[in-house]
Amino acid sequence: MFTSDCLNVNDKGHLTIGGVDTLDLAARHGTPVLVMDEAQVRENCRAYTSSIAQYYGGHGMALYASKAFSCKEICRIAKEEGLGLDVVSGGELYTALAADFPPQRIYFHGNNKSPAELAMALEAGVGYIVVDNMQEIELLEDVAAKRGATPQVLLRIKPGVEAHTHEFIRTGQIDSKFGFALETGEAMAAAHAVAQTQHLSLVGIHCHIGSQIFDVAPFELAAEVLLGFVAKVKDELGIEMSQLNLGGGIGIKYLPDDNAPSYTVYFEHVARMIETQCAALGLQKPYLLLEPGRSIPGPAGITLYTVGNVKEIPDVRTYVAVDGGMGDNPRYMMYGAKYTLLNAGKAGEDATETYTVAGRYCESGDLLAEHTKIQPLQPGDVLAVLSTGAYNYSMALNYNRVPKPPVVMVRDGDSRVIVRGESLEDMARLDV
Amino acid sequence: MFTSDCLNVNDKGHLTIGGVDTLDLAARHGTPVLVMDEAQVRENCRAYTSSIAQYYGGHGMALYASKAFSCKEICRIAKEEGLGLDVVSGGELYTALAADFPPQRIYFHGNNKSPAELAMALEAGVGYIVVDNMQEIELLEDVAAKRGATPQVLLRIKPGVEAHTHEFIRTGQIDSKFGFALETGEAMAAAHAVAQTQHLSLVGIHCHIGSQIFDVAPFELAAEVLLGFVAKVKDELGIEMSQLNLGGGIGIKYLPDDNAPSYTVYFEHVARMIETQCAALGLQKPYLLLEPGRSIPGPAGITLYTVGNVKEIPDVRTYVAVDGGMGDNPRYMMYGAKYTLLNAGKAGEDATETYTVAGRYCESGDLLAEHTKIQPLQPGDVLAVLSTGAYNYSMALNYNRVPKPPVVMVRDGDSRVIVRGESLEDMARLDV
Repeated sequence: MFTSDCLNVNDKGHLTIGGVDTLDLAARHGTPVLVMDEAQVRENCRAYTSSIAQYYGGHGMALYASKAFSCKEICRIAKEEGLGLDVVSGGELYTALAADFPPQRIYFHGNNKSPAELAMALEAGVGYIVVDNMQEIELLEDVAAKRGATPQVLLRIKPGVEAHTHEFIRTGQIDSKFGFALETGEAMAAAHAVAQTQHLSLVGIHCHIGSQIFDVAPFELAAEVLLGFVAKVKDELGIEMSQLNLGGGIGIKYLPDDNAPSYTVYFEHVARMIETQCAALGLQKPYLLLEPGRSIPGPAGITLYTVGNVKEIPDVRTYVAVDGGMGDNPRYMMYGAKYTLLNAGKAGEDATETYTVAGRYCESGDLLAEHTKIQPLQPGDVLAVLSTGAYNYSMALNYNRVPKPPVVMVRDGDSRVIVRGESLEDMARLDV
Repeated sequence: MFTSDCLNVNDKGHLTIGGVDTLDLAARHGTPVLVMDEAQVRENCRAYTSSIAQYYGGHGMALYASKAFSCKEICRIAKEEGLGLDVVSGGELYTALAADFPPQRIYFHGNNKSPAELAMALEAGVGYIVVDNMQEIELLEDVAAKRGATPQVLLRIKPGVEAHTHEFIRTGQIDSKFGFALETGEAMAAAHAVAQTQHLSLVGIHCHIGSQIFDVAPFELAAEVLLGFVAKVKDELGIEMSQLNLGGGIGIKYLPDDNAPSYTVYFEHVARMIETQCAALGLQKPYLLLEPGRSIPGPAGITLYTVGNVKEIPDVRTYVAVDGGMGDNPRYMMYGAKYTLLNAGKAGEDATETYTVAGRYCESGDLLAEHTKIQPLQPGDVLAVLSTGAYNYSMALNYNRVPKPPVVMVRDGDSRVIVRGESLEDMARLDV
């Protein structure tokens, strides 16, 4: 019935997260509020680390893809759990450094890094730059030369593997704004270009084949394709790249029936494929990197709203309006993303009613779910939307000048604010 | 070739806005930057005011729908131009009040106003509350009673008029989260409910039939339908509502071929319809309200970006990456919205190349345009996207922790910042 182990129902019939009553959380912190369970976040980190230990001899690291949800506290947790970090901008790097994240465990991504961002990364001692395009190789060499730095680089490759997922969030095919294509020879040209620089050191290869993927096979295929390229580069250039970064994309449960693959199955298959391929190609077993984003905070988070009004349109549908919407969760508008919704005060009861849940924003498309079964709702009830820990706060917007909500972390039966909610004054602070 | 009168090409072949060279603006303020021409904003305000004077005896007012772009400076301009204001949240109301906008000229909209927002509006002396649903009538009566206030209210009606537009931005049909349906009797029930309160005064009626509409006929039809309801309420309740608010929705030019209706044509038709209907129904000519949003700042704004890299994928397409994207303009991702794009330094030349313009965000869907003709582009060039004054900054998001850009206003050959750009520190200010 729930999408995550951190959720349950207490003896009052209320939804709990990390053992804390969600109605108490709504009363204490107000609504809308994004609540995360710290134990679940840490467990999700450890699932990667322990699987790498079990199936790959510990010769690898999971990098938390902070675009899923970046704030200082989640960087502190990732650091404590021994993860590395994937950042895609100066802002994510700033956040990581402000949380004392070890820079040598940071990988800097992006299809259009600015000269200022690259300089910031080298200045901070960021461990690795994942290079996306030919102009960036020139630019990074230039920035590195000026600073006397010798950055280690990975090449972002389009392996041509298509994972079955929503069109807007696919990547990895040749028609993508990201990376170097293998089949056109562009990837090999990039390897040659890096090898010819004075300052850049070619240490690895990266791909990202999509998002919210429920199947292990595309990852196995991507690993196979990438290792073939590693062998080819070794042949042509005499450089054996030692890092294999398979990116992110493992799906999570948004609906109870979603069949997310377990990390165990994922690692078992991928590790076996890598070992077989390395043996066949005469390669050393590479240091394995993975970039879980969604699967770290996603299942650990829920959003709580208060129901404002219920509008029944006879023979059409019943709209339930809540005090948030596209501002705190634009994923329904952007992707038609589906969620599980509950009346938090009746979480143990059957979901007997069919509702369309509308946000408070002046936009017809501002919905959170359509024609969804929920327990009966009335004004004042607390509505919970599950699995909102990733790509909700990080994509939040101030449309209609509605302030962004706070983010609260639950631990040991208590809760604390980890990102403060905006005030009206604060939101208008940049206006002259 | 351009979408707005404020744009031109100077003797260097550079795009100008309000007579100022856009390359100079990019150099002075950095990129990305949203630039608006103040004279064009004011001219767009005056087109409404003068048309109401010419065709409707001045018996009406245009309310600037601040959701299109809300900041203190645009509220000051709307105030100076004698417009009223449509606000949809406590945040937009806060912004208007902070800019000393006269509260009696403010209309407060929204499908789910909170008790705190209604109290804030009554406290501030907001002129009118546009009531959306039955629960809100009860709630507003309760809030008004507690304060001893007597708010003037308009009813938001679904007239059942469908304007031909994009599915996501349609409103006005019976299947909408907004307003009271006419054909189900709900609107009449609402009129009765307001009449029975102690504190609320029923003064008008409102509808909003859609967005980016290029045709005058739906507005005429909406006026006809609404006046029929005014007459019916007069019959049943003896109350003749004196305000007729036809909402917003007039389209603007995004592409050179877009055929936006002139205000003159709009007013001529609508005024004639109102006069004919009022004579037929024995009604006084109502005070006419319109709610232009997009058409005030939209055509007056452009966004300037710097090109980072150009990635040609043989036989597929050529991606041009810029230093902004979905964060400052999410409309392509949300609606597939189309824009006119130019190389600002070659604005007088022919658009000979076909590009897909990608943003800098880690998201495949982060594009600004696909397969669009633009003058040749190379790294370092300034790219201009036209008609971005509305629903760009107001929908901006901090995905990837990229700071929001500044907004700059051009006047008399000079430029000033009206909304400061975010710094990295500033963006992370809420993190604990």
